[in-house]
Amino acid sequence: MDKKEFALKQHEEWAGKIEVTSRAKLETPEDLSVAYTPGVAEPCLKISEDVDLSYKYTRRANMVAIITDGTAVLGLGDIGPEAGMPVMEGKCVLFKEFGGVDAFPLCVRTKNVDEIVKTVSLLAGSFGGVNLEDISAPRCFEIEKKLKECCDIPIFHDDQHGTAVVTAAALINALKLTGKNLDEIKVVTSGAGAAGIAIIKLLVSLGLKNVIMCDRKGAIYKGREGLNTEKAEMAEICNLGMEKGTLADVLAGADVFIGVSAPGTVTEEMVKNMADKPILFPMANPVPEIMPDLAKKAGAAVIGTGRSDFPNQINNVLAFPGIFRGALDVRAKDINDEMKVAAAYAIAGLVEEDKLSPDYIIPNPFDKRVADEVARAVAEAARKSGVARV
Amino acid sequence: MDKKEFALKQHEEWAGKIEVTSRAKLETPEDLSVAYTPGVAEPCLKISEDVDLSYKYTRRANMVAIITDGTAVLGLGDIGPEAGMPVMEGKCVLFKEFGGVDAFPLCVRTKNVDEIVKTVSLLAGSFGGVNLEDISAPRCFEIEKKLKECCDIPIFHDDQHGTAVVTAAALINALKLTGKNLDEIKVVTSGAGAAGIAIIKLLVSLGLKNVIMCDRKGAIYKGREGLNTEKAEMAEICNLGMEKGTLADVLAGADVFIGVSAPGTVTEEMVKNMADKPILFPMANPVPEIMPDLAKKAGAAVIGTGRSDFPNQINNVLAFPGIFRGALDVRAKDINDEMKVAAAYAIAGLVEEDKLSPDYIIPNPFDKRVADEVARAVAEAARKSGVARV
Repeated sequence: MDKKEFALKQHEEWAGKIEVTSRAKLETPEDLSVAYTPGVAEPCLKISEDVDLSYKYTRRANMVAIITDGTAVLGLGDIGPEAGMPVMEGKCVLFKEFGGVDAFPLCVRTKNVDEIVKTVSLLAGSFGGVNLEDISAPRCFEIEKKLKECCDIPIFHDDQHGTAVVTAAALINALKLTGKNLDEIKVVTSGAGAAGIAIIKLLVSLGLKNVIMCDRKGAIYKGREGLNTEKAEMAEICNLGMEKGTLADVLAGADVFIGVSAPGTVTEEMVKNMADKPILFPMANPVPEIMPDLAKKAGAAVIGTGRSDFPNQINNVLAFPGIFRGALDVRAKDINDEMKVAAAYAIAGLVEEDKLSPDYIIPNPFDKRVADEVARAVAEAARKSGVARV
Repeated sequence: MDKKEFALKQHEEWAGKIEVTSRAKLETPEDLSVAYTPGVAEPCLKISEDVDLSYKYTRRANMVAIITDGTAVLGLGDIGPEAGMPVMEGKCVLFKEFGGVDAFPLCVRTKNVDEIVKTVSLLAGSFGGVNLEDISAPRCFEIEKKLKECCDIPIFHDDQHGTAVVTAAALINALKLTGKNLDEIKVVTSGAGAAGIAIIKLLVSLGLKNVIMCDRKGAIYKGREGLNTEKAEMAEICNLGMEKGTLADVLAGADVFIGVSAPGTVTEEMVKNMADKPILFPMANPVPEIMPDLAKKAGAAVIGTGRSDFPNQINNVLAFPGIFRGALDVRAKDINDEMKVAAAYAIAGLVEEDKLSPDYIIPNPFDKRVADEVARAVAEAARKSGVARV
């Protein structure tokens, strides 16, 4: 049986990767009278007097909704809401196993932005936070923005911010190895989707000054013909030197390449034309923009990919369980930039200076320290930035 | 510590009565590659080709949504969506413990019928069924009706149909004891809410011909001034003899009293004026329409209440776990009358003829046989009535 067949068979045997279980024992009529009527009336009445007590008397304080419309599932694209569910259930498993967070998957049968926003906002009282997942750009930006405006719980689009946090963590450590500073380097990115945009925004808030974003047509610059709203916005903070040309053109002399685009976008020749000790994060999945061995041969000093079979896997699971754990612990009303930055430094900080090497810039996804440390840092940042409620 | 304080403290210690747990182990990178990327792509692709496979590869086949807007929670009334959650979580616990059904609570922050319908219908792909709970009348009727029209999964309002099924089961056995037939007796009900209406409808479909529904103003009859839509509809199938007057007036000579109204509605005198061997189900909670000892003293042959501290507790938990278990087992697209009738007879049938007595007309809620037997009967009725999909 090949790996695909095995995965399918295993999913059939699981009959769902999640389960709703009971935390209350229910063996006698007395148990029933506490967990259900008449005893249950007491917490109901308390919550009706003070809605915040829903965090004390129900599971809300530890419960996150995983929301998808199935429009950008993995690299499979728009496969429909129900078809996205195996990924959402997998995400729930990761939340639980790595962060101790209860997560419940909800696929929404609409692609309409306002209908998705309305649905999630009406359900916000059932959850302590919302993780948006595999929703296509540019709709994901609008949905996230509108939900942040109308909900009193944290809204987090992992495909954007989880990826950005882990990429930033990897870059922080790669720069230590190459002895460069974020505010002095030139970064070139390939891919103008949700992840690409979020990575740049986070790096800029970390101090990056010189970054050029490329799409299939090459460098994005202010005034380039046919830019959509998101790209036009990015042109305001990227490529202030107004460089024009192909990815190969603008990558010449760059210190860092970050790819969230497509296989084979970067050649050995292009790597050779980068600055001294170049850092490359070709993260296209499953086939990176350039294979690590080729990048290394061409002179790359540090390489990170999205894959588990190469060193330095830039994997979201390093971020989202700890980020939500920390946000839930202080009942944060938002997951803001300060919290994301704190998460990135916390992840980077887990690689001890004496162990830091080109093959170890980022913790292993199974490193048990990660979620706790990220949670601690995120909770602290939430408190300092005024979004913590307890 | 009194019982109320204990219930509150216990709820705080539980920190939620439900939990989302993982059915997939996740200890190695290989585990991760099956439960998550890249393995998870396989079930996603299969479901995208055939949405029905979501029942095979995700938890949908065993997952029910518990939906409330918090407008009619227990006897507490409109206490708000979040305040209804302790009841919903309790319901999830009952679903799991008694029926092996995964249930997840969602409180909806709107009282608008169409918004609730839209929200639930957009989420229908995540669940195998929907249980509506503690939604006030008459909105609950409209919500249920509209959802049944637009959803491809069973929609069941337990406050109506669960109560009706268990009441019918109790009546079936009480009639055996008193040697009367459903199509020959006169039934009088008190209370024109969701439960009262559903009980009458189910009893009529079981063969009852003579039934009078009373509200606070007395007997409802066709043409009575100021009837709302629901009562006017009931006047078409109830009280065909057009009796007028108070509850006391129409209860005279009746064989059965069913109360889903308010404490103290029925007096000893009224019981004495009923037919020979009267059956009384005063189910108002926590204080019945007439206390069982008084009813007995006045000549009641069989008495059932909603309380666990008297014999014959008419408790919904006898019905809904098995009904959903059966509906899910055959992937029913509806929970129809045939299935409810089958559930009522299955519950009644669990009381062996030789054990049947005025103090034992209905199984104990903790009787382990109930859910299985109800599920079996409901699944069979679903198949026979053409709503089963497997």
